[in-house]
Amino acid sequence: MKQACPAETPLVVLMTDFGLQDSYVGQMRGVLLGLNPQLRIIDLTHAIPPQDLLVGAITLADSLEAFTPGTIFLAVVDPGVGSGRRMVAAEIGDWKFVAPDNGLLTGVLRRYPFHGAFALENPRYRREKISGTFHGRDIFAPTAAHWSLGVDPAHFGSAITNGLVEIPWPEIVTTPIGIHGKVLMSDHFGNLITNIMVSDLPPTSQEGLRIFFAGQELSGIGSHYAQAPAGEPMALISSSGRLEIAIPGGNAARFFEHPRGATLEVQWTRW
Amino acid sequence: MKQACPAETPLVVLMTDFGLQDSYVGQMRGVLLGLNPQLRIIDLTHAIPPQDLLVGAITLADSLEAFTPGTIFLAVVDPGVGSGRRMVAAEIGDWKFVAPDNGLLTGVLRRYPFHGAFALENPRYRREKISGTFHGRDIFAPTAAHWSLGVDPAHFGSAITNGLVEIPWPEIVTTPIGIHGKVLMSDHFGNLITNIMVSDLPPTSQEGLRIFFAGQELSGIGSHYAQAPAGEPMALISSSGRLEIAIPGGNAARFFEHPRGATLEVQWTRW
Amino acid sequence: MKQACPAETPLVVLMTDFGLQDSYVGQMRGVLLGLNPQLRIIDLTHAIPPQDLLVGAITLADSLEAFTPGTIFLAVVDPGVGSGRRMVAAEIGDWKFVAPDNGLLTGVLRRYPFHGAFALENPRYRREKISGTFHGRDIFAPTAAHWSLGVDPAHFGSAITNGLVEIPWPEIVTTPIGIHGKVLMSDHFGNLITNIMVSDLPPTSQEGLRIFFAGQELSGIGSHYAQAPAGEPMALISSSGRLEIAIPGGNAARFFEHPRGATLEVQWTRW
Repeated sequence: MKQACPAETPLVVLMTDFGLQDSYVGQMRGVLLGLNPQLRIIDLTHAIPPQDLLVGAITLADSLEAFTPGTIFLAVVDPGVGSGRRMVAAEIGDWKFVAPDNGLLTGVLRRYPFHGAFALENPRYRREKISGTFHGRDIFAPTAAHWSLGVDPAHFGSAITNGLVEIPWPEIVTTPIGIHGKVLMSDHFGNLITNIMVSDLPPTSQEGLRIFFAGQELSGIGSHYAQAPAGEPMALISSSGRLEIAIPGGNAARFFEHPRGATLEVQWTRW
Repeated sequence: MKQACPAETPLVVLMTDFGLQDSYVGQMRGVLLGLNPQLRIIDLTHAIPPQDLLVGAITLADSLEAFTPGTIFLAVVDPGVGSGRRMVAAEIGDWKFVAPDNGLLTGVLRRYPFHGAFALENPRYRREKISGTFHGRDIFAPTAAHWSLGVDPAHFGSAITNGLVEIPWPEIVTTPIGIHGKVLMSDHFGNLITNIMVSDLPPTSQEGLRIFFAGQELSGIGSHYAQAPAGEPMALISSSGRLEIAIPGGNAARFFEHPRGATLEVQWTRW
Repeated sequence: MKQACPAETPLVVLMTDFGLQDSYVGQMRGVLLGLNPQLRIIDLTHAIPPQDLLVGAITLADSLEAFTPGTIFLAVVDPGVGSGRRMVAAEIGDWKFVAPDNGLLTGVLRRYPFHGAFALENPRYRREKISGTFHGRDIFAPTAAHWSLGVDPAHFGSAITNGLVEIPWPEIVTTPIGIHGKVLMSDHFGNLITNIMVSDLPPTSQEGLRIFFAGQELSGIGSHYAQAPAGEPMALISSSGRLEIAIPGGNAARFFEHPRGATLEVQWTRW
């Protein structure tokens, strides 16, 4: 049997701080598929540290390029759930976002052009009963499902005319001989992810760069983990274009005792 | 709207205590999709504490309303796997359940009408080789897949005529001035979930309620986390209609040292 | 555009050591569905211990029988990512595999016939920009997606003529009165998985077997957990056909202090 299947139904990608311990993510998926049974849903991650808007904003911005244009990101890190904080449906870059307007989209906004947003106000696109603590299920998921079905987001509520909320961003600091950055987070392998992008580094060869972290000089920037001796800290460019510190065969986060916020210095003299 | 792939194919929702560390859940999905390639599958959670029937029963009952009628719940928390314990396909409320008959459906049975059940006996709806320790893969998953394909559950085995097994349920206690309840479990955010439902509370305003927990009086019932000062314990109604204790910006489970079973008192005098 | 909903589109099953904390698995899924929107994707597990090829190889081999012939396994445990290590698309047994050629397929190769493999070399089946550290997203996922769409794997690169890499395998040792094996890993329930297969044991009754572990004799091989008294170590045959040690209602891994590599002895005298 052959059946028609709408390849054009957009993907919905979920990113939350809900964890996978409880039924929260499952309930959101239930609401999404209840409204659009054809939906394809991907979990980006549900392990954003509880209410950590910065890690959420970075994770979201760093992942977008793996998804086709038109993908809807349903992102919920929402300490203000149930309060008066605004909720939005936004188009930024090639993608769509349903999220609280609390800064979670900051990383995306800094990197891609903002095309417009609408507040989520129309009760028609919510569940009938709205809890005070789970708008992911009761408002954000129905909005994403209706958007995936082709509803014009202008129906969700009034157009946002004063911009979206942004959170303070961990900027790099330029010095006479290079830049200072800092560790933003670590990943499952213990690799330390920093706020230094490959585009912040001299554009040509990366030879001649000197990298200092935690009182030691690392060897220059490698291209892959197998390049350094096992157990020795190294710097390299991550798959998201960030300078990262890794210990091949080891765990840099444990070795450096989870140094979130710690400073990293990159020096170069003339180019 | 033209539906393409069979929107009428029911959802199968998985809830187990298998965790996501091993290949167990993946193997169940392989069996499900091997029998019904069109199936849409959702994980409710696989983090029910090992063999904890009560947490499983509560999690399942509290999640149903997020799923469309006809959804099949494949629920496996099964300390008696391989022994003589009965396995069933049951219809309760608007949903279908495939599970061991060991009390895992108690919460559902207490809240929704029981429409009937059949024992899982017919070898035709099992895998050919049955292991002694993984009926989730070898019996429950094939049953759910066949049910999703439209097999009449009467074919699975004999009708259950003596009711399903129920586990002791943590009841609230009525006092002259209110009720006592207890903490059932905590969630990913450290919120303490209790056995007091919103329907156990006075039906009109919740002002005037006094709530006592762990030797302190909490402020009255709030509607969302942002309502209380950060760091201060508060009571509120959870997204499942349960009284819950939270510490906004904090973690009540850690603060109160994981007080599963601890007593909560709600007082009110006249209404 | 309407497309046939190909029930025959193969499954892609993911197994990695990426964890679910980061966005890595989500990004891989984004790439897979970007290339083949019809794909059905299953997570086998993403909790292989970082860079642990042996646990990966065993988990993969032990899971295959739950999946229909033609399923594509995208397996990435890849300490050598970005180095010169080979990547392959291989057909083994009834299944297809996309993986680094670093021994991750050893368990599969030891159990099922090898039908051939091709190196992943053709830039046409990769993402345009290849990171040095995330070939799962940039090379393996696109390869699996193209394979699922019917591309002949001979287009991926040159045929492998010198066999695939295998890692040293934990063999059982035959003694005059039985065999010695060892603990390979533990599962979510704390059950200890060993390298002794049911086929290594005397073919008829398992009565009369004596099993020694950690200085004590276990009772003989049971068929399910409910058979032994709660809290007492027992041996049984796992759902993958391996001898396993469990403590019903307890956790053998914690009780025996995570004895990976510890020796297990099975004795029998005459048959």
